[in-house]
Amino acid sequence: MGILQVYNSDKTEQNQIGDSVYQLIEELFPICRSITGDGVRETFSIIQKHIPLKVQEVPTGTQVFDWVIPQEWNIRDAYIKDKKGNKVVDFKKSNLHVLNYSQPINKTIALSELIKHIYTLPENPDWVPYRTSYYNPNWGFCMSHNQLTSMQDEVYDVFIDAEHTNGSLTYAEYYIPGTNKEEILVFTHCCHPSLCNDNLTGISLATFLAKSLSEKNLHYSYRFVFAPATIGSITWMSQNEESLGNIRHGLVIAVAGDNGCMTYKKTRNENSEIDRAVLHVLKNKGEKFDVMDFSPWGYDERQFNSPGINLPVGRLTRTPNGCYPEYHTSADNLDLIHQSALVDTYTTYMKVFYVLENNKTYINNSPKGEPQLGKRGLYRNTGGHRDIENRQLALLWVLNLSDGDNSLLDIAERSGLTFDILVNAALDLTDCGLLIDKNASA
Amino acid sequence: MGILQVYNSDKTEQNQIGDSVYQLIEELFPICRSITGDGVRETFSIIQKHIPLKVQEVPTGTQVFDWVIPQEWNIRDAYIKDKKGNKVVDFKKSNLHVLNYSQPINKTIALSELIKHIYTLPENPDWVPYRTSYYNPNWGFCMSHNQLTSMQDEVYDVFIDAEHTNGSLTYAEYYIPGTNKEEILVFTHCCHPSLCNDNLTGISLATFLAKSLSEKNLHYSYRFVFAPATIGSITWMSQNEESLGNIRHGLVIAVAGDNGCMTYKKTRNENSEIDRAVLHVLKNKGEKFDVMDFSPWGYDERQFNSPGINLPVGRLTRTPNGCYPEYHTSADNLDLIHQSALVDTYTTYMKVFYVLENNKTYINNSPKGEPQLGKRGLYRNTGGHRDIENRQLALLWVLNLSDGDNSLLDIAERSGLTFDILVNAALDLTDCGLLIDKNASA
Amino acid sequence: MGILQVYNSDKTEQNQIGDSVYQLIEELFPICRSITGDGVRETFSIIQKHIPLKVQEVPTGTQVFDWVIPQEWNIRDAYIKDKKGNKVVDFKKSNLHVLNYSQPINKTIALSELIKHIYTLPENPDWVPYRTSYYNPNWGFCMSHNQLTSMQDEVYDVFIDAEHTNGSLTYAEYYIPGTNKEEILVFTHCCHPSLCNDNLTGISLATFLAKSLSEKNLHYSYRFVFAPATIGSITWMSQNEESLGNIRHGLVIAVAGDNGCMTYKKTRNENSEIDRAVLHVLKNKGEKFDVMDFSPWGYDERQFNSPGINLPVGRLTRTPNGCYPEYHTSADNLDLIHQSALVDTYTTYMKVFYVLENNKTYINNSPKGEPQLGKRGLYRNTGGHRDIENRQLALLWVLNLSDGDNSLLDIAERSGLTFDILVNAALDLTDCGLLIDKNASA
Repeated sequence: MGILQVYNSDKTEQNQIGDSVYQLIEELFPICRSITGDGVRETFSIIQKHIPLKVQEVPTGTQVFDWVIPQEWNIRDAYIKDKKGNKVVDFKKSNLHVLNYSQPINKTIALSELIKHIYTLPENPDWVPYRTSYYNPNWGFCMSHNQLTSMQDEVYDVFIDAEHTNGSLTYAEYYIPGTNKEEILVFTHCCHPSLCNDNLTGISLATFLAKSLSEKNLHYSYRFVFAPATIGSITWMSQNEESLGNIRHGLVIAVAGDNGCMTYKKTRNENSEIDRAVLHVLKNKGEKFDVMDFSPWGYDERQFNSPGINLPVGRLTRTPNGCYPEYHTSADNLDLIHQSALVDTYTTYMKVFYVLENNKTYINNSPKGEPQLGKRGLYRNTGGHRDIENRQLALLWVLNLSDGDNSLLDIAERSGLTFDILVNAALDLTDCGLLIDKNASA
Repeated sequence: MGILQVYNSDKTEQNQIGDSVYQLIEELFPICRSITGDGVRETFSIIQKHIPLKVQEVPTGTQVFDWVIPQEWNIRDAYIKDKKGNKVVDFKKSNLHVLNYSQPINKTIALSELIKHIYTLPENPDWVPYRTSYYNPNWGFCMSHNQLTSMQDEVYDVFIDAEHTNGSLTYAEYYIPGTNKEEILVFTHCCHPSLCNDNLTGISLATFLAKSLSEKNLHYSYRFVFAPATIGSITWMSQNEESLGNIRHGLVIAVAGDNGCMTYKKTRNENSEIDRAVLHVLKNKGEKFDVMDFSPWGYDERQFNSPGINLPVGRLTRTPNGCYPEYHTSADNLDLIHQSALVDTYTTYMKVFYVLENNKTYINNSPKGEPQLGKRGLYRNTGGHRDIENRQLALLWVLNLSDGDNSLLDIAERSGLTFDILVNAALDLTDCGLLIDKNASA
Repeated sequence: MGILQVYNSDKTEQNQIGDSVYQLIEELFPICRSITGDGVRETFSIIQKHIPLKVQEVPTGTQVFDWVIPQEWNIRDAYIKDKKGNKVVDFKKSNLHVLNYSQPINKTIALSELIKHIYTLPENPDWVPYRTSYYNPNWGFCMSHNQLTSMQDEVYDVFIDAEHTNGSLTYAEYYIPGTNKEEILVFTHCCHPSLCNDNLTGISLATFLAKSLSEKNLHYSYRFVFAPATIGSITWMSQNEESLGNIRHGLVIAVAGDNGCMTYKKTRNENSEIDRAVLHVLKNKGEKFDVMDFSPWGYDERQFNSPGINLPVGRLTRTPNGCYPEYHTSADNLDLIHQSALVDTYTTYMKVFYVLENNKTYINNSPKGEPQLGKRGLYRNTGGHRDIENRQLALLWVLNLSDGDNSLLDIAERSGLTFDILVNAALDLTDCGLLIDKNASA
């Protein structure tokens, strides 16, 4: 096993991974998660069957930068019952029906009063929206707009058996050591209840990417963090501030299983090595992809790219948050995601890791004119041909630009050659002594 | 009154300003101006009814950089009379008929001789051209080409009652102090006789922009300079060289009342703050506009942008000099300009001043992750929505980029949000202590 | 004679040069050249009838950077004879028939064995390919594919009367001193046998460019180098390493007589002065041209641009190597080249030399505002005109940008004016004392 095997293109292995990723999503789907509570703990416990997640609890009331860990929320049951005793909506059928972080309630009220606490999507009348009220005490229900319009003007029993208690916020991480203590961070948010693309796909892919990397020899160390969105990433940064300096590159993985194309959102710096590595991979995959400039709106990349943290963390998703109609609704379910898309996302991430792992800067040991490649068996014997193969062109590019200022990714960008053909050229040239690793030489 | 009120969008006030600007142009139109002489003095005297212009006289013979103030020119009368005693052209009907700065003459000559001193526009045979001969002693008349071709081959009395005397070059300025001694320069040339768009529009707009600014609380100090083109700006710079260093931004205002679109000509540096401020305003007005790269040909911006002066002075006009057919002809009269265009130019300038006045750099006091805006009443209470309002997005952008390196204009350019929504976000964030003015903090 | 006369646009002289260039190509065409041997010496001897080439011999076995000078190769005769005694191919009819650098052979073998040593071009069955085997001992013949397919399955006498002996590699140079010891390098490869466009055109044009320059007063010194491709340029650099630092600009001249458009390949730096000078000339010629980014594949520019040498040497050709079908075949003969194309290439080179010779940086002695050009006879006397002539605009641009940071080429690029109008403006301004040469002032 060597550094070059981070990316494994074996189709059988990919299909096995596709099965595993999908099955874990199915298993996690019914759980009611939130930014705190037992749903998150149950989720981590299931992931621990695959990777040795280390779970952390941060108590209610802890100051985390500008924020304070809120009371923990747990819910057992909730429903609206009409006067005949029929449950109009039932938390046990879908946890989306309750406004996430709702206060408990148990009373009988008229529809005219109840309706102030009901959230629907008139533009998609069959779907139930996902709504939250983490920091503003409130109670509420979400339902399809069609269901709301069919409700009689009568009194209803509303019941939410939830509690807010001093407890903790729960996050988890898995650290995979490489030969270098510099880290690649992969972050995924784990606070959404029964929503599939956003973000069980990110959770499950992060699990199996981590599992696969843990079986390889790595240059970088990798840190996979599973935490609630916003307050979770802020909590994690706050609790681990002294070691953030080890992070060299990062990606937020989410919304990773729909049929849309891969979409990369750049870091705040917009020309970080992670930006260039991802773009090189996407450009060379031969499929449509989208690129977004950085903005401070989206997922947890906005926290990592805040001015006082300023880590080069990009976001690599499929269709981004808010850009597909099923986003944050009951239609973001198992039907929305596809095993082929999950495998494609997985493969893309592995290719990015491959680039980062191998993106070295070399120095040409024979920099005056071209060295004679023929006598080293690296060049064809007959001269006079019209064309040159990419394999030989890669040798010439690596030699020409290896002046200590250009990494292999720089050379890939300038030459138009693929990264892997340049990696192989660099290895061949290193083997015959024409090239040395700049860091090794220092 | 505060810094935010530099730009006043009140339609009634704008219409009043439109009336005032137009009326001043009408009043100034008949006067025969030149680079020196009583026409300029009379013009300044009329402007003084609106703003307290300080008038300066620089004597004939004074060295101003590479130039010397010429003798002063004044003219009382001029005509060409045919043998029947009919005046073919008459200075009293239009001061354009005389070559500006003509020597006096009083003699009877044949058409064949006279024609060497006559200027026409064969391509626009009904129009009288505007021609000058400031530094090459000469005499001459300008007339329509149709009139020239109808002249009989006979002798004519030519009469120009003008004199060149030791006197002075006259310029004027109005200084409006702000809280900061750094200045914004607004320059307009005042040497053209009865030409309307070029440049009574610039003179009148400068007058009323100055008047309006003088009634507001200002960060910058403003200096409005009215002087002849070329030698006038050179004279002003030469006489005020020691204080040029206070000028932080500048604009030449001219040709400002025709129906063409706003046209900005960049400074020599081409990426000065004034360039960026004007372009932000023009892009966000929602109307067609043109941008020209700097060139050393045009109006007095070429003097301010000369290599030994090198002040960031752009030029903001409507249709630029030389780009409309009526330019420097008798057709550049009151019919060419429109009150709506004058108001539009006025408004555009005020928006530019608004950007300059408010373009501060702030520092985020809570830079690690996003601060919790909800608890400060700056964020909606329910979560899970697909979209975010620009007002909230502006808060996030200002927080994210306020690391001390980005001004609000930088943030506007990067975010695509308008400058004023960012100003308001910065004020809200400052009010709740999340942001401080970088200069105030130093 | 002065520096401004490097480029001579005299049509009669150009036609004479066209004749001379073409005749030299015809004279050199039959000679069998290689990377070593008497063909190269004979070629240099003929060139010496036009310019005083200094010929250098570098012995077999000499280490030249990573390479070693091989044994010298000379050939007297070669053929394949069928059993009737007919010569199937005959070196004396075309030297392309022998694999260049072939080992000697003299035996009778079956077609099935012979065919392993035969090179053809099935896609162009009438043409004979040019093939070499400099460093891998081998023997072989090149022929048309049609001829190969018509050969009977019988035995053949194969005969190559060649020898590899300890001798030397031969190169030549012509140094033309200017007033400055900084050099412009012009390199052309001289190792190809009877191939015309590649590269007798380069050899002959280099000869007559050098001859013409030697008759002029020059700012730069010029060094014309004639050497074999790859090992020849490497040998020359290795033998002259201590003086390479004098080279300020360089061009590789080759494939210079076909009817394709001029094609410039940039230096490794891609924004060297030579890149900008060539592009200015090509853009202002008013004819189609191509520009290629640098790549380490091509002619000897790859050696000069290697990381340990890193000289700004571009390549200016017509249709580049490998991009025309006749490349490295018997069809690259006298029919492929045209006297008009040779003259056009010659003229383009001379224009590039003109730019380099005159690309000075000046300092405006009167930098505050514009100096008064009228009193120096450099400006028209009547004012008020709509337009300005390029000749006067050039004066203003040179004055405005001559702050010590901009060369005339910088000013040409920014103003859009042609280089020669700016040169003349700079001379006029220097004559009247408004401008000084930055280097002369130091």
